[in-house]
Amino acid sequence: MKLRRSERMVVISNYLINNPYQLTSLNTFAEKYEAAKSSISEDIAIIKKAFEESHIGEIETVTGASGGVIFTPTIAIDEAKKIVQELCESLSESDRILPGGYIYLSDLLSTPHVLQSVGRIIANAFKGQKVDAVMTVATKGVPLANAVANVLNVPFVIVRRDLKITEGSTVSVNYVSGSSDRIEKMFLSKRSLKANSRVLIVDDFLKGGGTISGMVSLLKEFDSTLVGVAVFADNTQEERDSFDYKSLLSVSEIDVKNNRVHVEVGNIFD
Amino acid sequence: MKLRRSERMVVISNYLINNPYQLTSLNTFAEKYEAAKSSISEDIAIIKKAFEESHIGEIETVTGASGGVIFTPTIAIDEAKKIVQELCESLSESDRILPGGYIYLSDLLSTPHVLQSVGRIIANAFKGQKVDAVMTVATKGVPLANAVANVLNVPFVIVRRDLKITEGSTVSVNYVSGSSDRIEKMFLSKRSLKANSRVLIVDDFLKGGGTISGMVSLLKEFDSTLVGVAVFADNTQEERDSFDYKSLLSVSEIDVKNNRVHVEVGNIFD
Repeated sequence: MKLRRSERMVVISNYLINNPYQLTSLNTFAEKYEAAKSSISEDIAIIKKAFEESHIGEIETVTGASGGVIFTPTIAIDEAKKIVQELCESLSESDRILPGGYIYLSDLLSTPHVLQSVGRIIANAFKGQKVDAVMTVATKGVPLANAVANVLNVPFVIVRRDLKITEGSTVSVNYVSGSSDRIEKMFLSKRSLKANSRVLIVDDFLKGGGTISGMVSLLKEFDSTLVGVAVFADNTQEERDSFDYKSLLSVSEIDVKNNRVHVEVGNIFD
Repeated sequence: MKLRRSERMVVISNYLINNPYQLTSLNTFAEKYEAAKSSISEDIAIIKKAFEESHIGEIETVTGASGGVIFTPTIAIDEAKKIVQELCESLSESDRILPGGYIYLSDLLSTPHVLQSVGRIIANAFKGQKVDAVMTVATKGVPLANAVANVLNVPFVIVRRDLKITEGSTVSVNYVSGSSDRIEKMFLSKRSLKANSRVLIVDDFLKGGGTISGMVSLLKEFDSTLVGVAVFADNTQEERDSFDYKSLLSVSEIDVKNNRVHVEVGNIFD
């Protein structure tokens, strides 16, 4: 397909946006759009400048025979802070408080715009590190893990609390469920994670940390390494297992009696 | 932020790609990039041409005081067919057969590239119709519903087979579970779906159809309307409740004894 320069820049931008963290050779573009490699190179330079000035992302050029360009999505720190501040306000609405001291989050974690923003913010916090897969636990963590995995362009793996016939052989570990203080089991399909993977764990809400500790011990069973832990919100009222994590939001008080909840920005920008 | 024309086209393209099905006034772009509305109009014309020639999507211009532009993602029919054909081949691999006549799908439905392509194909099949929300059942349907909702830029709602305290008040219906032939219950959080919504139901695998019939009866409880049903794969060997649906893939034979599975392209292109 032969295109004019301005049109070519639009379609190359689209390609890069949809293929983050992936090396693409300039020849691929040159062949696809019937243009000289030098022209493609000039296009990329303009796209790079536009992407960087608007904090859409970075474009890295890898030289050599197997070279090309890699697009890494980013987010401007003030845009990220504004998004988290807005989430803070949404979460502070009193009608989100549920009996038992839980907060209703499902509407936020099922809105594409919110998920995409949160995905960008979390992915950006682990940008420098190589991540092979994003891990979460069913069901509530799935959309969040999916969003982060989309930005990092890696698969996500879903740990389950029940055994499903459709998962084939599984590996299981025991963990202490914070909500009930009981020993429970979690399962991961054997074929869902390759050995020696570098894994980012993502979850919606961190209370006691038992679920995340369980996932960390699952990683050992798969000879894999923990890159980090990121959660949408944590509850600082709870005692918990000690591990490092990044949170977007921090719930410091859920007062069911007076129908009040106090939410602050978490530690992700520290 | 003041940008050169070529840079402005790159960032406007990025904006449209990330905000599908959403009306944006030209003034928004004009103010953001400190350009005349007539220049923005020219930029959009070039982007429109590039998007349409490369089947990235359509750009519609709405005139009048509350006018602007709307980007609708599309996919070229031959690209869509090629993707489905490749999925057909992946699904036909004999090592996907699980005891009980199930097929292992989780790896495909947790790879961003596959999900995004499948999301585009399903969304494209319902492009003409107004969709307010995408509905699915936990857990396997979630990434697929998420992918379709991303393209349509609407929320997705997750029906559950168990009662979770974090969902608040729920509405439940009975359904016949095909795999066990028993009456079971499914639940949907009251606040997750507004009355009078037009809903697209999406699921990973269609066997007896009991789960989908259950979701259709849930829609009535929420005074909402069914737009259509789309599944990743159906199993034509099974008898099922009668309703219209679109499938990407069709599994006509799972022969556990001889370790063979026969997969064809579904009816989505009919």
